Amino acid sequence: MFDFQQFPQINPPSRLLMGPGPINADPRVLRAMASQLVGQYDPVMTGYMNEVMALYREVFRTENRWTMLVDGTSRAGIEAILVSAIRPGDKVLVPVFGRFGHLLCEIARRCRAEVHTIEVPWGEVFSPDQIEDAIVRIKPRLLLTVHGDTSTTMLQPLDQLGEICRRHDVLFYTDATASLGGNPLETDAWGLDAVSAGLQKCLGGPSGSSPITLSPRMEAAVRARKCVEQGIRTEAHQDGVEEMIYSNYFDLGMVMDYWGPERLNHHTEATSMLFAARECARIMLEEGMDKLIARHELHGRAMLAGIQGMGLAVFGDIQHKMNNVLGVQIPREVHGEEVRKRLLDDFHIEIGTSFGPLQGKIWRIGTMGYNARKDCVLQTLTALEAVLNRLGFRTVQGAGMQAAWDIYEGVS
Amino acid sequence: MFDFQQFPQINPPSRLLMGPGPINADPRVLRAMASQLVGQYDPVMTGYMNEVMALYREVFRTENRWTMLVDGTSRAGIEAILVSAIRPGDKVLVPVFGRFGHLLCEIARRCRAEVHTIEVPWGEVFSPDQIEDAIVRIKPRLLLTVHGDTSTTMLQPLDQLGEICRRHDVLFYTDATASLGGNPLETDAWGLDAVSAGLQKCLGGPSGSSPITLSPRMEAAVRARKCVEQGIRTEAHQDGVEEMIYSNYFDLGMVMDYWGPERLNHHTEATSMLFAARECARIMLEEGMDKLIARHELHGRAMLAGIQGMGLAVFGDIQHKMNNVLGVQIPREVHGEEVRKRLLDDFHIEIGTSFGPLQGKIWRIGTMGYNARKDCVLQTLTALEAVLNRLGFRTVQGAGMQAAWDIYEGVS
Repeated sequence: MFDFQQFPQINPPSRLLMGPGPINADPRVLRAMASQLVGQYDPVMTGYMNEVMALYREVFRTENRWTMLVDGTSRAGIEAILVSAIRPGDKVLVPVFGRFGHLLCEIARRCRAEVHTIEVPWGEVFSPDQIEDAIVRIKPRLLLTVHGDTSTTMLQPLDQLGEICRRHDVLFYTDATASLGGNPLETDAWGLDAVSAGLQKCLGGPSGSSPITLSPRMEAAVRARKCVEQGIRTEAHQDGVEEMIYSNYFDLGMVMDYWGPERLNHHTEATSMLFAARECARIMLEEGMDKLIARHELHGRAMLAGIQGMGLAVFGDIQHKMNNVLGVQIPREVHGEEVRKRLLDDFHIEIGTSFGPLQGKIWRIGTMGYNARKDCVLQTLTALEAVLNRLGFRTVQGAGMQAAWDIYEGVS
Repeated sequence: MFDFQQFPQINPPSRLLMGPGPINADPRVLRAMASQLVGQYDPVMTGYMNEVMALYREVFRTENRWTMLVDGTSRAGIEAILVSAIRPGDKVLVPVFGRFGHLLCEIARRCRAEVHTIEVPWGEVFSPDQIEDAIVRIKPRLLLTVHGDTSTTMLQPLDQLGEICRRHDVLFYTDATASLGGNPLETDAWGLDAVSAGLQKCLGGPSGSSPITLSPRMEAAVRARKCVEQGIRTEAHQDGVEEMIYSNYFDLGMVMDYWGPERLNHHTEATSMLFAARECARIMLEEGMDKLIARHELHGRAMLAGIQGMGLAVFGDIQHKMNNVLGVQIPREVHGEEVRKRLLDDFHIEIGTSFGPLQGKIWRIGTMGYNARKDCVLQTLTALEAVLNRLGFRTVQGAGMQAAWDIYEGVS
């Protein structure tokens, strides 16, 4: 007999997710996901797919035809682009300024790239010159960058890198999972050849679908490796001239043929996640990308002022901080995990811990997507101050709150 | 300005999906997906992950510890198992009896396996002897099988293959995407080392999450290739002795470490899809796997009787037909796609077309998951008869319906 008491229906507690993501999904996105399914080649479904392409062109600020979803988490989008673009032995350059730079190296190694890195200490970013020098020295085929690395909260400036890449004939990719929607990202104006993202940060949705966009140059690189599946190929299909892509699921040539007019069967599109991705884009574009980014800037600035007003130090070069996440140095007087546990248990507020060299040293507090709101910022600040006081860290009463209010009221 | 008229909210028409999948999701699964998110390391979330593991052990009939989800469509589950198990140069044997056998070959080739196939005509399956003979001749490291291939509607008997594989020291995998829940599948009793599935067929959910299970033998094969990500590795981590897995996203060693007590960060679990997968399992186990399979058998038999009663011929060896999908030969008097279009446009009922050698020759009608119901069977039969009559194909009026009713009332 099935034991209902052991496995009751899904009933998660109401949390305020103020970490580096995932954050609370916009309820409109959750409702869109509850829509009933249609068949994968139903004209209604292919119509929704075309709409998703059009919507994400606006989100990514691009005219790229191949703007679509990879069915998996944001990491799936990264791997799809890397395995489709990198031929074994290709040289790639990864400027590493945090954990997600290491992830790009790791994935590129699995694609059997010759991986070259340059590094700055965690909390800093690269100048265009540093990157160009490395490109000249290494002559990579691809430059793989992280736009916003939540592990350090830093935002790598990308606006001058496209021109450098063009000059040296390098394909230019960025992982915008953590940055898109909360910080300016201009795919075409910055000369990006490929960008990937996820829904679970500033886009206000759940993890599980990865919007990507590919430039015509990137499309050509992928098409050169075309390989049509035997079970569905006809005589009209011709393979590409270069080495095949060493993945079927992540073969973006096949994904393009599924999203394009040929509608060549590949995977069965994850309909509910597509509904979520479509609703995320609708909500963002309703607000407008510029206003959305400005909202992230405002609430990020209020959180920063509040944290500093409380007497806490922040991590890293704040000139290059992402709008949507803040690194807070854990004061010596308290145990970082005890603070997080109190916040979660007693206030149902989640803030983030850290990885690698920053583990135990900083918390990461997000203000993103659906939670880039004044009430979320003020609730988090008051709860954090109360918990810190409870655990023996002294603050000037309410000073953090006043500083945040000053931002909102334009006083400072 | 964002144009709401061009992109209205998601509002799919109400379809009855009677093709080979995806089919309509159970409304309880859709509601579960609309639940708000929690953080990925929230004890509530890791608790849900553990429950999903326990629930799917029942669904797969296994005691395998590593019973979990791959975040992607059912094809992602297949590729995760194949790329994690197959070392470049490994010999694999694929008995091909339809399109999805070709898919296993295709994915195995991308993993740089030495791929060997045996084939039977579409509409037939293999005897254990045929498979053992090929194993003896080829000496593969892995046997890759499709359990139910929707392209031909055939169900490959697997119950004797585990013992053969043990005897010849072969790892035994099956793709149960289309069969699980609608036909008996005994992971442990049949000696399976790995099984993958999807939610969008008999499980009654949407595409986008792939339940898998791995035997201890398969776990050992994967662990031998262990490779911990640089950004999160510590000195305690040690790499395996064999060649690494040429994917990060699909590295099941890393997926195990994320689902296991170490909770080593890999992807960000697709929470909404996990909620869906959990609800699918709850609903199946509430009914009981035996009753669920018996329900598929009953409605599949009623559909078969109805189609034959209408004077239509069925495709393939019906002794080896899956319970949940039926191949129907398109009569020469009508155009198959015109019938499908009328069914969709005028009745909102979807039935399936076919691939490869069967394209234009058969329709595929599913009776699975939430749609394995008497009302769905009878509605589909009446609509199909009406459309056939409209397009000039003569039937004995109502004979198909009577035959189906006879099944339901135990007359035949």
